[in-house]
Amino acid sequence: MGLTADEAAIRSVVETWQRATADADVPAVLRLIAEDAVFLAPGRPPMRGRDSFAQGLTDLLKTHTVRSRSEIREVKVSGDLGYCWAELTVTATPLDGGPDRAQKGPALSIFQKDASGAWFLIRDANMLAADVAELELKVDNLERELMADGPGG
Amino acid sequence: MGLTADEAAIRSVVETWQRATADADVPAVLRLIAEDAVFLAPGRPPMRGRDSFAQGLTDLLKTHTVRSRSEIREVKVSGDLGYCWAELTVTATPLDGGPDRAQKGPALSIFQKDASGAWFLIRDANMLAADVAELELKVDNLERELMADGPGG
Repeated sequence: MGLTADEAAIRSVVETWQRATADADVPAVLRLIAEDAVFLAPGRPPMRGRDSFAQGLTDLLKTHTVRSRSEIREVKVSGDLGYCWAELTVTATPLDGGPDRAQKGPALSIFQKDASGAWFLIRDANMLAADVAELELKVDNLERELMADGPGG
Repeated sequence: MGLTADEAAIRSVVETWQRATADADVPAVLRLIAEDAVFLAPGRPPMRGRDSFAQGLTDLLKTHTVRSRSEIREVKVSGDLGYCWAELTVTATPLDGGPDRAQKGPALSIFQKDASGAWFLIRDANMLAADVAELELKVDNLERELMADGPGG
């Protein structure tokens, strides 16, 4: 099955997004986002609007370089609405030389076609994993240490 | 602006889902899900297929009662594709009397209309927050305890 023109257009938006983020080209990223887009993620309130996203990305890129790899699993379109499921790996490297921070997980993004035929991101569900496994390990290690140091240790 | 018939149908699917989950009526939940649905969440691989979902829900309901409250923020449809953004609060209470476990967060769900005009869930992005804040607090408390117990304490 070949891609439809609309499916190809959404894939192209996702690919441009990755490249522009790596190049720290914020205006190029913003051109792919509807003005009233909403960004959803675990553990924080919805981030509403392209301007809020722009602020967050600009702040991050002041202190980090960001590499983002996206493996597109699926794109589907009906009329002027489409979605993309991708598996992301995002690595943020502090400019001051601190350790990399890598996060992995799926994203489910919704795109809308405007009157000119161009596609824009309107809703984004970001499921890059919080470092739960790492925190759980830390709790385990601290509990073990505490046992060894305790009155009976 | 009134709801279209399709938007109302998607809202009805979401509401039926909540009620059926609270009633532990697994077959009623499964009737709302496409056979090849995919469930995405942070920190675990994609869960593929209605049967995998059924197994997970059945296992959970053996040991817990689950209350799920959904505040629908938005439903949008184009042709045979639609999405729903909802803010969820899910509380799982162990049947053996242990403490409740509450999780909150957004969900972005995609629905497809079949030939008969019925809507089914096909993709689900679940962003119920992992208990990161709780784990961070635990690490803090353990570190403090360890300091107090240590050689200098």
